[in-house]
Amino acid sequence: MVATMRTLQEDEIEPLATGAWILGAGGGGSPYDGFLNLRQLYRGGAQVELMQPEELADDDLVAVVSTMGAPLVGQERLADPELSIKPVQALEEYLGRKFSAVMPVEIGGGNGLEPFLVSIGMDIPVVDADAMGRAFPEAQMTSFSIHELQMFPMALGDIRDNAIVITRAASWTWMERLSRTICVALGSTAPTAKAPRTGREVKDCAILHSVTRAIRIGRTVQEARLSHSDPVAAVLKAEGGRLVFSGKIVDVNRRTTAGFLRGSTALDGVDADHGSRFEVEFQNEYLMGRRDGEPVVMVPDIICLMDSESGEAVGTETLRYGQRIGVIALPAPPILSSPKGLTVVGPRAFGYEIDYRSAFADPGETS
Amino acid sequence: MVATMRTLQEDEIEPLATGAWILGAGGGGSPYDGFLNLRQLYRGGAQVELMQPEELADDDLVAVVSTMGAPLVGQERLADPELSIKPVQALEEYLGRKFSAVMPVEIGGGNGLEPFLVSIGMDIPVVDADAMGRAFPEAQMTSFSIHELQMFPMALGDIRDNAIVITRAASWTWMERLSRTICVALGSTAPTAKAPRTGREVKDCAILHSVTRAIRIGRTVQEARLSHSDPVAAVLKAEGGRLVFSGKIVDVNRRTTAGFLRGSTALDGVDADHGSRFEVEFQNEYLMGRRDGEPVVMVPDIICLMDSESGEAVGTETLRYGQRIGVIALPAPPILSSPKGLTVVGPRAFGYEIDYRSAFADPGETS
Repeated sequence: MVATMRTLQEDEIEPLATGAWILGAGGGGSPYDGFLNLRQLYRGGAQVELMQPEELADDDLVAVVSTMGAPLVGQERLADPELSIKPVQALEEYLGRKFSAVMPVEIGGGNGLEPFLVSIGMDIPVVDADAMGRAFPEAQMTSFSIHELQMFPMALGDIRDNAIVITRAASWTWMERLSRTICVALGSTAPTAKAPRTGREVKDCAILHSVTRAIRIGRTVQEARLSHSDPVAAVLKAEGGRLVFSGKIVDVNRRTTAGFLRGSTALDGVDADHGSRFEVEFQNEYLMGRRDGEPVVMVPDIICLMDSESGEAVGTETLRYGQRIGVIALPAPPILSSPKGLTVVGPRAFGYEIDYRSAFADPGETS
Repeated sequence: MVATMRTLQEDEIEPLATGAWILGAGGGGSPYDGFLNLRQLYRGGAQVELMQPEELADDDLVAVVSTMGAPLVGQERLADPELSIKPVQALEEYLGRKFSAVMPVEIGGGNGLEPFLVSIGMDIPVVDADAMGRAFPEAQMTSFSIHELQMFPMALGDIRDNAIVITRAASWTWMERLSRTICVALGSTAPTAKAPRTGREVKDCAILHSVTRAIRIGRTVQEARLSHSDPVAAVLKAEGGRLVFSGKIVDVNRRTTAGFLRGSTALDGVDADHGSRFEVEFQNEYLMGRRDGEPVVMVPDIICLMDSESGEAVGTETLRYGQRIGVIALPAPPILSSPKGLTVVGPRAFGYEIDYRSAFADPGETS
């Protein structure tokens, strides 16, 4: 654990992107644009201060950012640092107060990089924390929601000159419904600033050190590549993950609907999994994996489809026929699989009528 | 014209409701709940000060209110004075400034009464003005839009605890699209506070004295009833209107879709119109009337279907088979039929590929 504020180095940007994409569980949007933007800004002399959550004063005000919407649309409409700042400024104007730091709502995918762009544009540090420890599709699927913190005000912007502040919401579900509807009206992708958090709330209720985790995972992949060893195996070893399936994509069903990318993919097994079929269902993120029809891995465990060769994550919007894939599970932050956590991000929160079974439970327990 | 601030009298409430319903052109929602609410508040000791627009100081800040949505839904979910205040307070909070008066965005239907409920709840006078001189279905169909005034910020509330402020909009069309989408998400009906107006803007760009006009029309109907004369004929005479058709409703098509009530009704002629068929199309409000297939009356003229017996307006949500109806046209405020006005509220603004032809033009000109 890093104990004090430090400057993110340029050679950490690529590992951050690679690691965030793996933690994205297929969602959070491709980090590639964010990576290019951030590297470009660094080469122009910009720097980002990465702040440890423990350094926050209790009454510091932290902006919580993400781009909301369907990843496939996010890929068509490129990220723009100026755009990410708009809703943060709209909230500052609404609150009549300045933010002292910024953090991602989800470390996963491009959304893990977004606060770094906001940081440079607004000259405030990034907090080494998020509210999911991964990516999830819906606004209420956060540790802040599990801790029952207030969910408003929240701001949305767009590439035109539209800006909306949801000043009150009757519940987290209403907040998700209203913000999703507005997001769809803005073109199914929108930069957002979620409910501001105090330093105290971040320290007590966020997932801590998730930026550091993403960089570490990315470094593992990078080092495996340099040493010509298996990047999937390296990540599993370093992060305590499990290989769930090795296969080749033989089918992809994908539809962008109601502000989400929904669908499924099917893999035919290779190597030790030859003869088996694996199916993964997704709503922006991978939710449920079934081997020969049997559920074997599910939310909130981090289900990641990795390119077997490069160790790069494959997002739900970039799945394509013929890819060689290692399906892995990484452990999610413990709060997500707590009884309260499972009501918010467990299988039933996504409409599955089954109880959560951890991919990391002892085999004796899970049978 | 009344020259100074005066107290609305209890015996003016019913004529106001009757007149507003006629000016609603079928829309603006039934004023019946608002009428009952307002009378109840008056009987409890409340009073409303009606202020002439000429009395506004240039820098007074005026709240502009209406309930947005599909009238049929508005009829199912009853009006509540407390509810109408919510978005006005949300805007005050956003602006950090108090309103000194309130006015309707449209004098037509229940929306013509809504500022009176806000007035009592917030203890500010009602301005004798609106921004349509009637009712129209969409947010941009106002004299403020024709004058190209700024369209934000705008607030929406609901019966739960949701509140949204659209802090910026790229255009009037974007404002309509965003607010309509949010309105649908809130249940297809929502109390709103439109962009605040300065006293100067109201004096220069509003439709003046429209509350007085509504009360006057309602009085005409009331007096005709008392003297057992024809209320439809009395309104036509007093307001310079034209009887377009007398008939009996033989068909009603109605669907609530995308936040609007859309459809059409057909009438078979009676008396002098025996043997003819009349059809009226609507989107919340009556837009276009055709006699035997030929367009004879259209927006922005105020098309009103009146109950032949009682002289009460019949709204698009209360049309029913067998009603005896006088279809009338009343002249709309001149700005609406100006070249600029017609681009915003003329037939083409509603998708009709025909030029506006006034129901009040000299017969020689219109043939």
